[in-house]
Amino acid sequence: MSVAKEFEAANANYAASFTKGDLQLPPQRKVAVVACMDARLDPARALGLEEGDAHVIRNAGGRVSDALRSIIISQQLLGTREIIIVHHTDCGMLTFTDEVIRGKIHEDLKQNVDHIAFLPFGDLRQSVLDDILLLKDSPLVLDVPITGYLYETETGRIVKVGDNQ
Amino acid sequence: MSVAKEFEAANANYAASFTKGDLQLPPQRKVAVVACMDARLDPARALGLEEGDAHVIRNAGGRVSDALRSIIISQQLLGTREIIIVHHTDCGMLTFTDEVIRGKIHEDLKQNVDHIAFLPFGDLRQSVLDDILLLKDSPLVLDVPITGYLYETETGRIVKVGDNQ
Repeated sequence: MSVAKEFEAANANYAASFTKGDLQLPPQRKVAVVACMDARLDPARALGLEEGDAHVIRNAGGRVSDALRSIIISQQLLGTREIIIVHHTDCGMLTFTDEVIRGKIHEDLKQNVDHIAFLPFGDLRQSVLDDILLLKDSPLVLDVPITGYLYETETGRIVKVGDNQ
Repeated sequence: MSVAKEFEAANANYAASFTKGDLQLPPQRKVAVVACMDARLDPARALGLEEGDAHVIRNAGGRVSDALRSIIISQQLLGTREIIIVHHTDCGMLTFTDEVIRGKIHEDLKQNVDHIAFLPFGDLRQSVLDDILLLKDSPLVLDVPITGYLYETETGRIVKVGDNQ
């Protein structure tokens, strides 16, 4: 069975007891979370989010440079006024370089992707600090509280790395 | 109290009963979900995802062109072999155009963002079909099953819009 079919079955259960059809479009808690796409991280469960609470933006590494379009829309059109960044231990982004993945794609897919920055990093804490600074310095991002965490996939805990205060 | 402090308190509860510290990095169900960042959509609850199951990539609109870096990493380095796209009813991306948001940013932030494509859309179903086609035609994306849904924020249901078969 494809995963799609399994998702449809699971969703039928979710919808059968669904009671949140009246939620409004703007996030109630006025916050945008930028987190890694990693399968082990569930931002809603790990941070106590209910449906309607927060924008959740996710990509490989939880990199803010790749989330800028979404953050601008979140702030300018939907009123969020705080940003939370969540990277995590044992991240895949620690395991390769642009050269490695570009080489693999050239070998396997016969494509040149030298124009794509895959945004890997060598130091987890620094990756969070770099992303806080990038947002803080961007003229396209409002001056709002920004807090960065490392999620420990081993313990389920978030550990604060820095903020923009 | 900042939302960050509330997240820290909620996370302490999550971590106190955490039992999933042994999960592996590659997603167990070998699937990547691309979904909108909308606050009302919780992909894990709505699709029956447990920690460790799936990559979840989220951005404004759930647009795949803005998820390409993450999809390539997901497939090339972490072995996912199916893609699920989830857009949703009452999406904020239906409410503006590039001209509108560029004008607002020029007015409010005194910045020119004519170089940023904000990827809004006028037709929900078509936005899903367009995104399936973009992935299907990309030489950087493997030929894997792709299924696109609309999530109904009013009912909690996902409705299939198309696939690449």
